[in-house]
Amino acid sequence: MRIVIIGGVAGGMSAATRLRRLSEENEIIVLEKGPFVSFANCGLPYYLGGEITDWQQLVLKTPADLHQRFNLDVRINHRVTAVDLTQQKLTIKTPDGIKQLHYDRLLLSPGASPIVPRMPGVDLTQRQFVLRGIPDLKKIVTALKQNNLKKIAVIGGGAIGIEVTEALLRQGDQVSLIEAQDQILAPFDLEMTAPLTAELRKHGAKLHLASKVTRILADNTLVLENNQQVASQAIIFALGVRPDTAIFQQAGLKTAVDGSLLVDEHYQTSAENVYAVGDAILTKNQLTQQAQPFRLASPANRQGRQVADAIMGLKRKNQGNIGTSIVRVFSQAAAQTGLNEKQLKKMGRNYRCLHLRGNSHVTYFPGAAAIKLKLLFDSENGAILGAQATGQSGIARRIDVLATAIKGHLTVNDLPELELSYSPPFGLAKDPVNLAGYAAQNVLEGLSDNLQWYELAKYQAAGAYLLDVREPVEIQQNGAYPQAHNLPLDSLRDHLAELPTKRLIITACQSGQRSYLAERILRNHGFQVKNLDGGWLTYHDGMTQKLGKA
Amino acid sequence: MRIVIIGGVAGGMSAATRLRRLSEENEIIVLEKGPFVSFANCGLPYYLGGEITDWQQLVLKTPADLHQRFNLDVRINHRVTAVDLTQQKLTIKTPDGIKQLHYDRLLLSPGASPIVPRMPGVDLTQRQFVLRGIPDLKKIVTALKQNNLKKIAVIGGGAIGIEVTEALLRQGDQVSLIEAQDQILAPFDLEMTAPLTAELRKHGAKLHLASKVTRILADNTLVLENNQQVASQAIIFALGVRPDTAIFQQAGLKTAVDGSLLVDEHYQTSAENVYAVGDAILTKNQLTQQAQPFRLASPANRQGRQVADAIMGLKRKNQGNIGTSIVRVFSQAAAQTGLNEKQLKKMGRNYRCLHLRGNSHVTYFPGAAAIKLKLLFDSENGAILGAQATGQSGIARRIDVLATAIKGHLTVNDLPELELSYSPPFGLAKDPVNLAGYAAQNVLEGLSDNLQWYELAKYQAAGAYLLDVREPVEIQQNGAYPQAHNLPLDSLRDHLAELPTKRLIITACQSGQRSYLAERILRNHGFQVKNLDGGWLTYHDGMTQKLGKA
Repeated sequence: MRIVIIGGVAGGMSAATRLRRLSEENEIIVLEKGPFVSFANCGLPYYLGGEITDWQQLVLKTPADLHQRFNLDVRINHRVTAVDLTQQKLTIKTPDGIKQLHYDRLLLSPGASPIVPRMPGVDLTQRQFVLRGIPDLKKIVTALKQNNLKKIAVIGGGAIGIEVTEALLRQGDQVSLIEAQDQILAPFDLEMTAPLTAELRKHGAKLHLASKVTRILADNTLVLENNQQVASQAIIFALGVRPDTAIFQQAGLKTAVDGSLLVDEHYQTSAENVYAVGDAILTKNQLTQQAQPFRLASPANRQGRQVADAIMGLKRKNQGNIGTSIVRVFSQAAAQTGLNEKQLKKMGRNYRCLHLRGNSHVTYFPGAAAIKLKLLFDSENGAILGAQATGQSGIARRIDVLATAIKGHLTVNDLPELELSYSPPFGLAKDPVNLAGYAAQNVLEGLSDNLQWYELAKYQAAGAYLLDVREPVEIQQNGAYPQAHNLPLDSLRDHLAELPTKRLIITACQSGQRSYLAERILRNHGFQVKNLDGGWLTYHDGMTQKLGKA
Repeated sequence: MRIVIIGGVAGGMSAATRLRRLSEENEIIVLEKGPFVSFANCGLPYYLGGEITDWQQLVLKTPADLHQRFNLDVRINHRVTAVDLTQQKLTIKTPDGIKQLHYDRLLLSPGASPIVPRMPGVDLTQRQFVLRGIPDLKKIVTALKQNNLKKIAVIGGGAIGIEVTEALLRQGDQVSLIEAQDQILAPFDLEMTAPLTAELRKHGAKLHLASKVTRILADNTLVLENNQQVASQAIIFALGVRPDTAIFQQAGLKTAVDGSLLVDEHYQTSAENVYAVGDAILTKNQLTQQAQPFRLASPANRQGRQVADAIMGLKRKNQGNIGTSIVRVFSQAAAQTGLNEKQLKKMGRNYRCLHLRGNSHVTYFPGAAAIKLKLLFDSENGAILGAQATGQSGIARRIDVLATAIKGHLTVNDLPELELSYSPPFGLAKDPVNLAGYAAQNVLEGLSDNLQWYELAKYQAAGAYLLDVREPVEIQQNGAYPQAHNLPLDSLRDHLAELPTKRLIITACQSGQRSYLAERILRNHGFQVKNLDGGWLTYHDGMTQKLGKA
């Protein structure tokens, strides 16, 4: 039979090669609207930043390669303009004119297109760009170089916006990053973005958070909502993408409100013999059971392979996603998996949260780097709901372990049981993931109770007594909590009589660990206590980010 | 009540601090036979090698620290010489003479002692050493330095032996490593140790595998079983450890054949009010359900905490272990989790095996390092039984994910579903762990069938036709399989008529991936085919190691 695949990147190409491995008999035709197939989308910013020096490295396979090895018929610069679902026929704009093509099975992997905002002054011919493919990349590089443009505005602080910002800063450009939300990188919670925001600013980025662009002047100067002007010679829009599904909607395929194609768990669309994968579909969020887009490379590749199995009648279905991502911000890595606190709040889910400051490996071995880890879990059964981490080393590893734990339906009670690689150059006998499990278990079992950085003022207003158990010198060096009383942990037992017996005591320290010990001492002496989760590090990150000072 | 803990490292100290956090009321006495508590056992070789420059960094806590923060009564240089289980009383040799001490609860965390072999010439006063504690470390460093000893023999190629060998090589010493087995690092399978053996030799180690020392001459020259002499000025025994339980056996506690204390799942020994943790006990192997020692830092620490909970009546039990470890061999890391192939064979378990050559991150981004990954799984249900990996980067991460997968009872069918951190500097859209899952799934579902490197000769002798699908230039560069026919993959479809239809065809290539494609093409054309798992890389590693040439 003839299987036609629309879209020759990630999902489409994974499907094509798997289809060939499953059978030598089918005719497999891949139609790609652009000049390249099988290129490394995710690598584009790193070419812009000069870390990848040859753009051809981003082209993983050519049509000729794919023909020779997989007997695929790959047609580039072929744009499908209409789909006749009844006749099973495509209309295609090709370099040789309009053509028709019959299909027995049709796989849609059209991807998504960058969103270009509607506002006065937007004009993609006027040194304003998006970055989705190699042609976009070439356009940007050529324009910046030929015109010696050094003052660039990036609009949108998601992963692509951050990667592009870093890339341009690496090239010595002056970069303004404008983001409508009060934080960059939406998959992370506010306080977790503080080290990343600080890292960008350290490298010269001018960040405008909670800022909306309202129009663009003729010289590409941006005008923000507050009438502030941001001078820029060139603009890159990094406002996310929308599924590239207009012609399929026109053909009659069912889509969601956002234009995403609706598919069943075998990737079949609303039409017989028509399947879809990748950025253009919704999949089930395994943690919420709701359909949503996961526009990431890994799911697209997986779906491509799985749909090939489905088309060939193998037992395979789309199990959904939890969403895991990582982004580099100069020397910092930031990774996350599952749900964040913002989402959990919005859902009204009963969750608990903890922040932990760990290390990539034992501190007595050279090169250990700090890890800031946030863990979210169900208040009742301890199910792991999400995790976020930042730091210079060991970040992907911890988030990968936690992502695997979520997939395995582990609870926080299982985290201490994880046996992770340990020897001094590589880890810790008690890994941050183990420690997070212990801390969460303490909360679940009532040995500890915490409050979050954004709740401190509320508790204090309600009469809580804030006890900072750090050493005075640490407070001087790092900063003081508002209206805090100080009693260093190691002298706490000698001063119990000075503490209020009828008020809630909030113990606090630098990272939340010593204050937990203080909490235990005080609880064991009958005091009513909560621990300030994550200590000064988290409180300071949250407050500075909230106040726009990060 | 009075809780007495024997042993102030890892398990013992984790128990002591947790006990204090659970209650302020108990008297907690820690008796440590040596001069240090809470020291970093695992860090010793790195001080020897000069990477850790101050041995005091290895002492994590002093008795004074522990008293001040945890109100613990820590007594160093206190060696328990007798236990009266009926009277609940200890006899202790202290710096102030013999003393008696009553306990309400007793926790044994005595650890294990290095094995000193019995053979002519062994004398620990004659520049022959073991390495278990800081005093051992000081003795070695002083002796080597003062006498300018540069020619050292390390006996035993386990993790400690390898770490000590590397440490001495880093100091410019000439090191001979003698190992009775035909490979170093017993937790790994033979072929997986080849890159590590090669790395040691590259840095100047003289390896004597499958070699037994029979006696030691007066000048510390070793005499091997084959009468070969290995000149050395000093000897370090790294032959493993045995539990330090003689006095507890004498007291009447039940032990296993190897001297390990027998405990129930709440860590209680055969005596009431007496508990034990750490290197001195056996725990259940979660993959075999058999009791065995897991003498590793992580389990000891976990057990210490858990036994504190058990003593204080919290619901907590020892769930057993799978065993995860990592060792550095210069620029190579080697990590493993679960069971290895040798164990599975011995058990008669129905397992499948696959070798995969992946990368730490996408190859188009600078700095990607090769990963050699071995995955073992149940032939029937795909349960993950074990994994091993070697390489310069990303090793701990992949083994940690697989260890977590084992703990979550995931099967190989779940590995492709894992959503792991990906962006170009950090990973791959299809991580090696995902790819291993796909490959294993292919085997389980009958899309592919493989044979192992050590089976090739047997299959060929039985008439199989070996088809090498590499390019001729690769064969010249890397080496040729015996009696192989060559047809590069990309021309395979044009030469099908030349292949035998009545013989088993074994496809082979460099890593096993192209030969899998060849296998699929041939199977889809009706041939009977098996794929040589792991290709030339694995075959070559296995054969050179087997032949002693690695």
